[in-house]
Amino acid sequence: MELALRGRISIFFDNSDKLHFVKDPLILIEENRITDIDSYSKLKKDIVGHDIIGDKNQLLIPGLVNCHTHLAMTLFRGLADDLPLDVWLKEHIWPLEDKLKAEDVFRGCKLGVIESILAGVTTANSMYWYPSSEAKAMEEIGFRGLVAAPVITGITKLEDAIEIVNKHHNTAEEKIRVTLSLHSPYTVTITDFEQSYNYLKEYNKNCDEKSKLLIHTHLTESENEMRESKQLNTKYGLEFPAVRTPTELLNHIGVLNDNLIAAHCIHLNENDIKLIDSKNVRVSLNPLSNAKLGNYMPPIPEMISKVKNVGIGTDGPASNNTLDLFDTVRFLALYYKGYLHEPTIIKAKEVFKLATIGGSRALNWEGIGTLEAESLADITTVNLKQPHLTPKINDDNVLNHFAYSMKGKDVENVIIDGKLIMEKGKISNVDIEKEIDLVEEITHRLLQ
Amino acid sequence: MELALRGRISIFFDNSDKLHFVKDPLILIEENRITDIDSYSKLKKDIVGHDIIGDKNQLLIPGLVNCHTHLAMTLFRGLADDLPLDVWLKEHIWPLEDKLKAEDVFRGCKLGVIESILAGVTTANSMYWYPSSEAKAMEEIGFRGLVAAPVITGITKLEDAIEIVNKHHNTAEEKIRVTLSLHSPYTVTITDFEQSYNYLKEYNKNCDEKSKLLIHTHLTESENEMRESKQLNTKYGLEFPAVRTPTELLNHIGVLNDNLIAAHCIHLNENDIKLIDSKNVRVSLNPLSNAKLGNYMPPIPEMISKVKNVGIGTDGPASNNTLDLFDTVRFLALYYKGYLHEPTIIKAKEVFKLATIGGSRALNWEGIGTLEAESLADITTVNLKQPHLTPKINDDNVLNHFAYSMKGKDVENVIIDGKLIMEKGKISNVDIEKEIDLVEEITHRLLQ
Repeated sequence: MELALRGRISIFFDNSDKLHFVKDPLILIEENRITDIDSYSKLKKDIVGHDIIGDKNQLLIPGLVNCHTHLAMTLFRGLADDLPLDVWLKEHIWPLEDKLKAEDVFRGCKLGVIESILAGVTTANSMYWYPSSEAKAMEEIGFRGLVAAPVITGITKLEDAIEIVNKHHNTAEEKIRVTLSLHSPYTVTITDFEQSYNYLKEYNKNCDEKSKLLIHTHLTESENEMRESKQLNTKYGLEFPAVRTPTELLNHIGVLNDNLIAAHCIHLNENDIKLIDSKNVRVSLNPLSNAKLGNYMPPIPEMISKVKNVGIGTDGPASNNTLDLFDTVRFLALYYKGYLHEPTIIKAKEVFKLATIGGSRALNWEGIGTLEAESLADITTVNLKQPHLTPKINDDNVLNHFAYSMKGKDVENVIIDGKLIMEKGKISNVDIEKEIDLVEEITHRLLQ
Repeated sequence: MELALRGRISIFFDNSDKLHFVKDPLILIEENRITDIDSYSKLKKDIVGHDIIGDKNQLLIPGLVNCHTHLAMTLFRGLADDLPLDVWLKEHIWPLEDKLKAEDVFRGCKLGVIESILAGVTTANSMYWYPSSEAKAMEEIGFRGLVAAPVITGITKLEDAIEIVNKHHNTAEEKIRVTLSLHSPYTVTITDFEQSYNYLKEYNKNCDEKSKLLIHTHLTESENEMRESKQLNTKYGLEFPAVRTPTELLNHIGVLNDNLIAAHCIHLNENDIKLIDSKNVRVSLNPLSNAKLGNYMPPIPEMISKVKNVGIGTDGPASNNTLDLFDTVRFLALYYKGYLHEPTIIKAKEVFKLATIGGSRALNWEGIGTLEAESLADITTVNLKQPHLTPKINDDNVLNHFAYSMKGKDVENVIIDGKLIMEKGKISNVDIEKEIDLVEEITHRLLQ
């Protein structure tokens, strides 16, 4: 039997940035694609042979896209909060990470995938150690994701990264992809950036879009990085002006283009923003994590209006502290209003776009983040019949609830690649309590 | 049978500001009070005759205290977001409020009470029209709350407010109190402030603490108010310096003291903050609503360190957009870290304090907001066995989850005044779906 979904209303952006509201919607699925979406009365003739999921209380939206995270860091959630970034990293996180084994990352990532699905996220771009463990966890549950083949100067090598690419890129029925994870311009030398990019250029020759490799990096997340990038300029003998920004540096060495997913993008000047847009760079904004770590905040209003390929991410659950993208949506919608004293600065439809079709563009993953016909069947349904989502009067009102009232826990059903992964809040074939216990055992062991 | 509660851990501040963590806790209740709290092993001998609620996965915390809201505004949630404050109020909210009837407020408030309880809030200080309707809704469900007897110059009169006080103050087994609601220094004349205060002073003579009346006002919420307060100074012929602040104005006329609950407190200079603390004014901070409306943000780090009686509120659900105090907790814990680039500026235990014992002080309601023996039995339990609340390694780790990961929907049981109001997510004697439908019918009618 193929699946079909019913709801009260469906909301999605199509690939031409048109916002659709479909009342009393029916979505028809065949294999892993949406074949049609329209009102129930128009489509009900085609419903034969479909199992109907959902009911007239559901909001049907694209599965949410988490553009930058570190899934397995569920292991370290809430262990060391309210600390400066360098103390947090150097005294708490790195010593724990030194002890990690492949199995630990598998368990941490599996819990992260479960948490994501419970909150309606169907795709995540994760960067972490032991990418094979992350790929295994995603595949086991049927999640869509990108894992990171790490290249960090002095720590991991391109050859090992290539092995990960060959092993996992476009596997699990094309639900898993690999990024070349060049951690950041301050931890990866220009030589390593250039070598990796040369490999990627060769790899991508003659590839179709979905088979292309991307680079995933942290760009201008911290003030330290701004200082250290200047040292790199000198260290590698390039004759840069002293004030060259990390963004300009990446442009100078030729990697600032549509093969790059740049996470954070906090310290940008006007020229950097222009560069990022004109070069079609893919961006993941992670404002909630930036706030929690006391970093500066990214220029999101400008990014929304001036940059094409922008999505949002939670960052890792040790600095957020959840994988619930609704938290990031709401924080983003609120923070800049308060900061700029401007209640109109970011609107509900804009954050909805960032969390859906924006994610598709930020990850270059065609077919996700929308519900138009022929797209991939990644669908989240939210139970609207709840006090905090009342009243439901018109289209805009429901969209406002998405931005300001909804939470991951309101999600009821999740379909990924045409498969019903969660029904009425239950993920098939997963013993959540057991997974929680396993993660707690690991964290206890790491802390010893 | 009396109630007893079990859990994995209990966290609370006592009245001397000491933070307690009780592992494997047992709470014993008799009638409406907590008689004892300690580890299960120490107290289990006293358990005979008690019905045990909860299990070893629960976090036991004081019922959360919402210090400033407008409960019945559930009717207007999400109807007009992303707008400037004056457009929102004048073009959308006020025209709808003009059509309100007592029954509408009852329904709106009842849904607000339900939403509050679902999110672990056991006390709310609400300011709205038709306070008898709000009192009826609170009493019907067994909620603890303050309703507002409004005095707004040219609209409502002190005599009518006095009638509300006489009818509802300290009713419903002492769970409902009344505030004299002098809306704000820019909508209430100095004469009306003074008259109301004279009545209150007489009323409070010879009262015990719990019978005392308080004034509830909006103080320095908007920039307009700062301008208009100067006009008032002139209008009523008082020889004020031109730059007298609204806080100084209230001090000048003698109402800035421990009989006052001041909501918002955004535009404060250093002297205002000193005045507010030295006069023991009670404060409700509502940062999420302030951000959403694009108001300036209150100086919360200073308020936390310099003012004694500080709690937090959601404000109304038309400007938040929920009554879930966890949303406000998390936003507050995050916003100032991002704004000041200072990850240590507000800590998890400080927001926990604001949401619990701080609320007791802000509302002058002894016995709520704590779990120490002899306090009122208002208790919220949260199911910790969930992916986004994993791992649980030590006390601080669980407190961090409270600040950064928990949501209202994680709440499982709620006890108010010794009565089990919600068990395993179900509120007794309430048909939630019916209440939702009734509210939507009202909103539809008001919009016609």
